[in-house]
Amino acid sequence: MMGSSFALAMKRAGLVKRIVGYSKSPSTTAKALQLGVITVEAASALQAVSGSDIVLIAVPVAAIEGTFKAIKHMITPDMLIMDVGSTKSDVVDAAQRILGSLVGSFVPAHPIAGKERTGVESADVNLYAGRKVILTPVARTLTNQLNRAQSIWTSLGCSVESMSPDAHDAAFAAVSHLPHLLAFALMNSITTQKNGDDYLSLAGTGFRDFTRIAASDPEMWHDIFMANKVQMTLQIEQFQQALDLMASMISNSDSKSLQTSIAHASVARKNWHLSNELPTK
Amino acid sequence: MMGSSFALAMKRAGLVKRIVGYSKSPSTTAKALQLGVITVEAASALQAVSGSDIVLIAVPVAAIEGTFKAIKHMITPDMLIMDVGSTKSDVVDAAQRILGSLVGSFVPAHPIAGKERTGVESADVNLYAGRKVILTPVARTLTNQLNRAQSIWTSLGCSVESMSPDAHDAAFAAVSHLPHLLAFALMNSITTQKNGDDYLSLAGTGFRDFTRIAASDPEMWHDIFMANKVQMTLQIEQFQQALDLMASMISNSDSKSLQTSIAHASVARKNWHLSNELPTK
Repeated sequence: MMGSSFALAMKRAGLVKRIVGYSKSPSTTAKALQLGVITVEAASALQAVSGSDIVLIAVPVAAIEGTFKAIKHMITPDMLIMDVGSTKSDVVDAAQRILGSLVGSFVPAHPIAGKERTGVESADVNLYAGRKVILTPVARTLTNQLNRAQSIWTSLGCSVESMSPDAHDAAFAAVSHLPHLLAFALMNSITTQKNGDDYLSLAGTGFRDFTRIAASDPEMWHDIFMANKVQMTLQIEQFQQALDLMASMISNSDSKSLQTSIAHASVARKNWHLSNELPTK
Repeated sequence: MMGSSFALAMKRAGLVKRIVGYSKSPSTTAKALQLGVITVEAASALQAVSGSDIVLIAVPVAAIEGTFKAIKHMITPDMLIMDVGSTKSDVVDAAQRILGSLVGSFVPAHPIAGKERTGVESADVNLYAGRKVILTPVARTLTNQLNRAQSIWTSLGCSVESMSPDAHDAAFAAVSHLPHLLAFALMNSITTQKNGDDYLSLAGTGFRDFTRIAASDPEMWHDIFMANKVQMTLQIEQFQQALDLMASMISNSDSKSLQTSIAHASVARKNWHLSNELPTK
């Protein structure tokens, strides 16, 4: 989904002529060919990378190390390699460990765009338009590749920001990874109750939007939680404190504190707007 | 918002000729007149009820008892009185306590429809169309009024279900009240962190949808949490257990259990569909 959407957007922007695709599942590359997402199917990741100008690695975070190993012998100093992973410290560690002196060609990237659906059939040429992309270059990243990465994402309609891998992972633990965990935990909490199915049949549009991200891909999110364990643990603790505080206001009938606490949250959410989106939403 | 939307929908369905409005804030009724939501402004709740066929009480849950007291002397045995509150046991208790022998005219109603915006200016003639409405009649509810309530909501395009007040409150603690509390708690958890504002500036569409309900009205939600304290406390405990379990899988690097747990949640959410909505959403 992420890789195919990138391919479609790059083609529409006129930034690429030939798109070589590889997936460990042959049916995926067959579908990608059929849908016009790729021009050529490669027999291996190594073959896909060979001779390419730009390489986008769109795999679950835990597969990135193996992917680096598979392609490193065809990486050249001029090539631009990017990923689209939701965690960055682990990816940067793997790149430094596996790629050695070629690590300068790798620009770690996290486009803040996604869907709960996966696979090439969910490709969307507009997925990245108007979205933010975070780049987390390190000291050894080559300026040439960093500039090209910035220019490419900008051409796709993205606004580009740079930060350190650690700052990235702390922020996304709070605003993305934790919300996913909470949505998964809520589904599990309800479905393990005796009357859970009856309860679910009564849920409305608030529940629909709140739990949309709970339909996300299990492998991908398992990898993200594991890769960002330290920051996740901190954010879970912070959240549990905030929840415990509100729960005790309810059980102690502390009306005044509860109303203040809800009002604080409500104002904060009303004042928040999706980056690059009009505040009319 | 709830009351005005009902007025607009009733008028469009040709079910009412004259709509009398009362609000404790005079600017609300003035706006309602101006927007064509009501035909007449009443000087008091008692005056608004006097001579009406159908009375809809759309006030925060904690104000329902005072409203019953204010209108009881103009309620007749033929009148249909309904509320639109999100909790039902407390509303039914108040009705039985205050209305006495007139309680048979009251049909407790909870339309599963809402928005995070409030006020007459957010009125939406289509708010209830295609939505579920839960009625929670008690032994003394008159069949005549119950049938009229069912027929009215059906005419507005709703599907009507009946259940006991307690069963209602247990279900909605799980699928509505708890998600709201979690969304409020998440906003508070992030905004009380040193880098909270920076984190929020990076949040994307998943966060947007997950926290949409955190912008809801503080007074309304304070009242709901307080009115449904017992069921809320049970659901908070259930949720905390589910979250603790997943958190310990992450901190113990128990990959297999974590992936199973996420997959369980993801499948449950994929299999869930909003009642009355096509599964293509």
